[in-house]
Amino acid sequence: MSDDVTPRRRGRPRDTSIDTRVLEATRELLADQGFEATTVQAIAEWSGVHASAIYRRWSTRLEIIEESIFPGFAAITVHPTGDLRRDLRRFIRTYLATFTTPAARAAMPALLASYQSTELADTSVRWLAVSVRPQFVDILRAAPSDTVDRDVDPDDVFDALLGAILARALVPTVIQRNRPAERLVDLTLRMLQPTRVAASRRL
Amino acid sequence: MSDDVTPRRRGRPRDTSIDTRVLEATRELLADQGFEATTVQAIAEWSGVHASAIYRRWSTRLEIIEESIFPGFAAITVHPTGDLRRDLRRFIRTYLATFTTPAARAAMPALLASYQSTELADTSVRWLAVSVRPQFVDILRAAPSDTVDRDVDPDDVFDALLGAILARALVPTVIQRNRPAERLVDLTLRMLQPTRVAASRRL
Repeated sequence: MSDDVTPRRRGRPRDTSIDTRVLEATRELLADQGFEATTVQAIAEWSGVHASAIYRRWSTRLEIIEESIFPGFAAITVHPTGDLRRDLRRFIRTYLATFTTPAARAAMPALLASYQSTELADTSVRWLAVSVRPQFVDILRAAPSDTVDRDVDPDDVFDALLGAILARALVPTVIQRNRPAERLVDLTLRMLQPTRVAASRRL
Repeated sequence: MSDDVTPRRRGRPRDTSIDTRVLEATRELLADQGFEATTVQAIAEWSGVHASAIYRRWSTRLEIIEESIFPGFAAITVHPTGDLRRDLRRFIRTYLATFTTPAARAAMPALLASYQSTELADTSVRWLAVSVRPQFVDILRAAPSDTVDRDVDPDDVFDALLGAILARALVPTVIQRNRPAERLVDLTLRMLQPTRVAASRRL
């Protein structure tokens, strides 16, 4: 009622609150009941938001699930300081934390399965690459030149890092190991550093 | 009946042929019909082996599927030559080829999901780690000392390599990229090489 009076509330507060409730309910269902049980109907019941209102916002169940576990990687924006280890540590910690929540662990295998029948251009796979990759490149750009080999392809390093994080989230023998973030930071620094490998490649 | 007479036939040759038929049928079903459709009943029909005979050999459907797509990593044994790049190339190519078959791609997300409800000590996760990890360590041991940093934990590098291979098999943006084996060999050499990272860690 006071919407017209209070400018701060003009941003459709009701929408935001519905989104939040739906995404929260989705995370809870994933963590408690698993992927299969997290249907739109279950999300509607758990959140108290009508299914039709949910479908007005998201076209598929997978979209809701993706948005719920990867809450816009904007949240993990790292402003590079030029200290490569420090920047990577912040980046990797946040990335790792996102992938290893109970909800993300529950949903990820099914999401990976769904991508096998999905067009590569489909927006649903964006979270895995598009939204975070440029941040990684920004960090490398800000680093001192003697810490990053210009011959190394940042995409290769990013792919390996993504893979290592997937393994940390999903593979039991890897999950068990301690200090995951620090280990990944060290390995990433190793992958990036100027090397004799390129020079010896043609031997 | 002739078991006592013919020592050569004591190894139950009929078993081997049944195993082969079952595992082949499983791979074909996975690649053609997907994971869900690859039930023991479907495997029995496709292979012509009775379900009871299948259950005499494997206790669960997951065990059959795992054995069918990871045919005992004994097959990919690399005898280290001491040439690190060459040994890694053979190791990574074989490993990558195993994970990226249509059958493996179809089964892997569901296998990963199943491990979340599986005891870590369960034999069913062995293929991911136990059987190949020692081979990787052997390759590093055989390498010249100036190519492998003694400070780097081989398990860390192996975990990252495993993750990178998983990503190559399952993540669309990564699958698309070319020369996967050579890229992984380069990155692995980078991770292993003697580094200034360890020395600067305490700064």
